Amino acid sequence: MRRARLLTPHGPVETPVFMPVGTQATVKGVPQDILEQLGVQILLGNTYHLYLRPGIEQVRELGGLHRFMSWPRAILTDSGGFQVFSLSELRKVTEEGVTFRSHLDGSLHFLSPETAMAAQIGLGADIIMAFDECTEYPADLQRVRASMEMTLRWAERSKKYFEEHKFEVPWNSHHPSAVSRQQNPDTGKQTEGCTQALFGIVQGGMDLALRKESAERTIEIGFDGYAIGGLSVGEPRALTREVVEATLEYLPQDKPLYLMGVGTPEEIVEYAKLGVDMMDCVLPTRAARHGLLFTSEGKVSIKQARYAGDQGPLDPNCDCRVCRRYSRAYLRHLYATNEVLAQVLNTVHNLSFYLDTMQRVRHSI
Amino acid sequence: MRRARLLTPHGPVETPVFMPVGTQATVKGVPQDILEQLGVQILLGNTYHLYLRPGIEQVRELGGLHRFMSWPRAILTDSGGFQVFSLSELRKVTEEGVTFRSHLDGSLHFLSPETAMAAQIGLGADIIMAFDECTEYPADLQRVRASMEMTLRWAERSKKYFEEHKFEVPWNSHHPSAVSRQQNPDTGKQTEGCTQALFGIVQGGMDLALRKESAERTIEIGFDGYAIGGLSVGEPRALTREVVEATLEYLPQDKPLYLMGVGTPEEIVEYAKLGVDMMDCVLPTRAARHGLLFTSEGKVSIKQARYAGDQGPLDPNCDCRVCRRYSRAYLRHLYATNEVLAQVLNTVHNLSFYLDTMQRVRHSI
Repeated sequence: MRRARLLTPHGPVETPVFMPVGTQATVKGVPQDILEQLGVQILLGNTYHLYLRPGIEQVRELGGLHRFMSWPRAILTDSGGFQVFSLSELRKVTEEGVTFRSHLDGSLHFLSPETAMAAQIGLGADIIMAFDECTEYPADLQRVRASMEMTLRWAERSKKYFEEHKFEVPWNSHHPSAVSRQQNPDTGKQTEGCTQALFGIVQGGMDLALRKESAERTIEIGFDGYAIGGLSVGEPRALTREVVEATLEYLPQDKPLYLMGVGTPEEIVEYAKLGVDMMDCVLPTRAARHGLLFTSEGKVSIKQARYAGDQGPLDPNCDCRVCRRYSRAYLRHLYATNEVLAQVLNTVHNLSFYLDTMQRVRHSI
Repeated sequence: MRRARLLTPHGPVETPVFMPVGTQATVKGVPQDILEQLGVQILLGNTYHLYLRPGIEQVRELGGLHRFMSWPRAILTDSGGFQVFSLSELRKVTEEGVTFRSHLDGSLHFLSPETAMAAQIGLGADIIMAFDECTEYPADLQRVRASMEMTLRWAERSKKYFEEHKFEVPWNSHHPSAVSRQQNPDTGKQTEGCTQALFGIVQGGMDLALRKESAERTIEIGFDGYAIGGLSVGEPRALTREVVEATLEYLPQDKPLYLMGVGTPEEIVEYAKLGVDMMDCVLPTRAARHGLLFTSEGKVSIKQARYAGDQGPLDPNCDCRVCRRYSRAYLRHLYATNEVLAQVLNTVHNLSFYLDTMQRVRHSI
């Protein structure tokens, strides 16, 4: 377990940190000022969704994702690869990249290390991810190795494209506060430290030897940070933990380490203790939309009739704006009547619970 | 045009006032603290919906509607009659009341002057409405008279039941702040001035003579305030205005006057100028959910592609939290991607526009 501060072009990020997911340039149902008040330090945006709508060039012309969604703090974007594999009607994976059909209208698109980098540079997140293939689970060793090898070749291509284009972020010309940071005050020249950071992704399935090899060869390519990908894809939780623990051994301690797509409140504490710096997960926001709420006393399914007359707060040990103001009876009523405010309040609470959990971890270090 | 201050058990209401509609104990999508910040002084709750879910006894046991929804300021409830007529599968109207089937599950219910009063006393709004029949439009004179006569008989029964039960509001036993106001500090006895107020409703269709008769006979029964009902039911706007103007002539100037279910931003200004003190309408909140936004430069249909690249605020003359922070391009994106935040932000802006409009009217007096 370690505590650190990442310095991004849009402010510092205290780690270990949980990153709420803002798929379509919004954390579903929650206004940005409330996210700020909750203490969200960094948001995750999904390149696949933003690529389809409103489109990369549109976001670039509007000054980048920060300005587009009016979010002044740090943003990380994924490469789009994971969601191409999970959401789109897949057409074809080749060495060159992935041809796929949009899940929205069936239109044909192509994503490769180069186009995924171009997209993420156009969006202008502070941290962007190499284009990888998330190996399916289960997969035999030969398949896992082949997939890992392709991810490594794609990592090299991602880095090459990034190095050649990394100053083309939209803030260079549009974002007023970033411009000043982007330029050396004496020379007016752009300084390298102020552009995006690129993270590599370790794959290798559930095979520890391949994980080691993937880590070492990804480090050899050289990135600003390293992510552990290819987990939370259906494998048992004990296996996830085993692979994470082993993979962390092979990753450099002087770089930010990011575990993708994890996890429950218990898991984020556990992985932070193992030395993971950054985590993201749809769980708090998606569960909120289904009325599943995380509390200090365990999970609460607010739709249950037993809460209809319950005047107490959702979580008596929570100081969030929802627990301070509303009763379980009211939250249950909102959910039962399918009111939009249910989603808003439930999401605010669950995010607050995750962020508080991680803050306690930081304070315990 | 006149300016006044209504004193309710849950605080003062500066008139003329616009009352946002919070049908199911929520203004769809907007947290209560934002409503407070917007300057909402009084909310309208719908008895029909709350009667069905979560049920009157449930709300009473939870301390009444204010406490249930955590809204400390004033509330007005309608009698439920209008929505029985417009939403439910109607079974039968008799002299006694209305038997109807729930629009939710087809279950059978009965609403009468007495049960509507009991329901509104159980909810515990500051201002409650007599049970009336909203005469359909068009209707022949004989039908309008018969409907008006029944509304008058129902008004008498409403008042009789209210007078006998008006101290049974849930705040008497549950609401800590209301208890102190409810009791005379010297004697500990309940004082009349602190319970609910009951408003009568003038009907009479579009016939000015019947409106006059309805007004006079409703005043004779005697209420704390008077509402003009039976309008915005499909008649031309010019006719609405004519009937409002004529009816106001017959209503007492020393009581609050409430025009139900009106209107556009232009109309609420117009009616305030005629002397109406209170108005409510679903238009700002419902239009927001359909992406129709009111601005100082006219209506904006935010779904239009022309706004996809528009970096300007929704309304350059609006100081609301939405116009201060977000661009038209972002609001358009949220709407186009069917994001819940679209409803939240659009509703906040439209309500802000209505409330600001009414505040300007008050300041101009």
